[in-house]
Amino acid sequence: MIETVTWSAGSVRLLDQRSLPGEERYLEIGEIPDLVEAIRSLAVRGAPALGVAGAFGLAMAAHTSKESDPQVLLAHLKETAAVLDAARPTAVNLRSALERVMRKVDSFAASGGSSAELRAQCLAEAELILKEDLDLSSRMARAGAALLPDRGKVLTHCNTGGLATGGGGTALGVVIEAVRLGKELFVHVDETRPLLQGARLTAWELERAGIPYVVQCDGAAAWCLSTKEIDAVLVGADRIARNGDTANKIGTLAVALAAAQFGVPFYVVAPRTSFDLSIESGAEIPIEERDPQEVLEWNGRRSAPIGAQGWNPAFDVTPARFIAAWITERGVEQPPFD
Amino acid sequence: MIETVTWSAGSVRLLDQRSLPGEERYLEIGEIPDLVEAIRSLAVRGAPALGVAGAFGLAMAAHTSKESDPQVLLAHLKETAAVLDAARPTAVNLRSALERVMRKVDSFAASGGSSAELRAQCLAEAELILKEDLDLSSRMARAGAALLPDRGKVLTHCNTGGLATGGGGTALGVVIEAVRLGKELFVHVDETRPLLQGARLTAWELERAGIPYVVQCDGAAAWCLSTKEIDAVLVGADRIARNGDTANKIGTLAVALAAAQFGVPFYVVAPRTSFDLSIESGAEIPIEERDPQEVLEWNGRRSAPIGAQGWNPAFDVTPARFIAAWITERGVEQPPFD
Repeated sequence: MIETVTWSAGSVRLLDQRSLPGEERYLEIGEIPDLVEAIRSLAVRGAPALGVAGAFGLAMAAHTSKESDPQVLLAHLKETAAVLDAARPTAVNLRSALERVMRKVDSFAASGGSSAELRAQCLAEAELILKEDLDLSSRMARAGAALLPDRGKVLTHCNTGGLATGGGGTALGVVIEAVRLGKELFVHVDETRPLLQGARLTAWELERAGIPYVVQCDGAAAWCLSTKEIDAVLVGADRIARNGDTANKIGTLAVALAAAQFGVPFYVVAPRTSFDLSIESGAEIPIEERDPQEVLEWNGRRSAPIGAQGWNPAFDVTPARFIAAWITERGVEQPPFD
Repeated sequence: MIETVTWSAGSVRLLDQRSLPGEERYLEIGEIPDLVEAIRSLAVRGAPALGVAGAFGLAMAAHTSKESDPQVLLAHLKETAAVLDAARPTAVNLRSALERVMRKVDSFAASGGSSAELRAQCLAEAELILKEDLDLSSRMARAGAALLPDRGKVLTHCNTGGLATGGGGTALGVVIEAVRLGKELFVHVDETRPLLQGARLTAWELERAGIPYVVQCDGAAAWCLSTKEIDAVLVGADRIARNGDTANKIGTLAVALAAAQFGVPFYVVAPRTSFDLSIESGAEIPIEERDPQEVLEWNGRRSAPIGAQGWNPAFDVTPARFIAAWITERGVEQPPFD
């Protein structure tokens, strides 16, 4: 089990994913601006992990406030939730976890709860979100593992393992569970530019799990699907619309198109918390555009000439028609979702 | 004009593309093993440029040999051609340029030419290949420029400008010619992992030419084609089969699939010297697999964990059905080619 996000005596404890795979370093975060910075700079990332981190963020804000008036504390938490929510716009889990904690706190405040009770409820709800996330991971893993053949080959994009969740995983969790159940699998790992979550994080998780794999350039995925007899593509999701359109890490759409072309089933593995049933289609999903420097350099080393501009959308939207199935904690699902 | 490959008093002079865009450095190469290393390590690359470099390599081998017996010199040149040919297996231009020079030298030797005459013929043929390459670039540029709209947006993969040829360009040559003719164009440049020929070389050429552009991750190309109203995709080629199947830099296939999906015409720009009419389809094109370290590192900095394996095919093959047209020095063509 990877301790991606945990509660540590009043602080949010994060495995700093920016230093992986070189170094396993943990951050103890006690201030909201530091948590926002950790989220923005991807010390913690992955839609389910962002939900857990956001919930613990509210618990930390409640914990560190000395406010004795529950209504004032409530207003402070609402402001904090808005600040955290704005840190990353695409993944729906961050917002939904914040809303869930606030609903809980709101109802306690409305029924005359004290500030101390609000603090306790905030933390209890965040702990519950983490516990549930681990449970969702297990259930998705079991549902997905049944779809993979023994001696199979899978392709994955970005990182969707324990590092992307409270510790279990979505798409990579399926692979790890299938191997645990005795299947032999080989994984083609897209490096996932610009921030190389595949090369850095998925490879690190597969090394830990002892599962054989190769890292490949994102541009090699289509050729891989055309020539390597891949049995399945497994990816995660940052937000899924009612019709099944799925926002995920930039590059996912290209993989889905190639999988469709070469007859490889393309599965999205995501908990129901990544579904946004308030929107009909992917056209309504906001796509975060990040600093172009991420494209023009890596790890501080510049590739493009001085003066070069970059375009850096962090996500793309794969239309539902290219997706064979959505694997959630409920099983193997098809849209429309409700 | 970029002096990609030239003859310099007995040496092959190369603009060292490994140090671009940071530094404009030239290599003066006087030994065949150094030229083989320059070709393998991509100091010179791009199918047409490889043809010119190979031809000058034979001229250099002839020039540096003191052999007075023309038959012994001929045998030495044949061995040298085989060594150069083996340096890169996918681009057909290298082999065809070597064969062309050897045919010339063979016929002179057969008609009783002296070693001195063989040396002179070798160089004359190499100079002719360079001159013809520049002429082919101009003709492709004019044919392709007519297809691009004013105020248009194009997407390109890898580097296909003067750096990939004797100095003119294939796909990027078309863009530069269209701008020279007064059209306003904006270019989306795929960075082109693993060796970043797009971010490093295409961006450098566009900066020099003053043409506006953005660099994007290869994984962003499909999303770009889906959302950015791109008018055309332009790529080069390393080898084209009779049926039009086209080998080009890894990642090209993914771009072609996305262009087909989103209704953007996908053009291959290549001189007839990049066509291999001895093969029926792309299934017969050998695909070079390069050192996995290129995938596990980025710009000399390691990304993957210790122990990670990589898969590094240098090219992929795009089936002819995804290609709208082939732009050659003869104009806008369709297969089967003969």
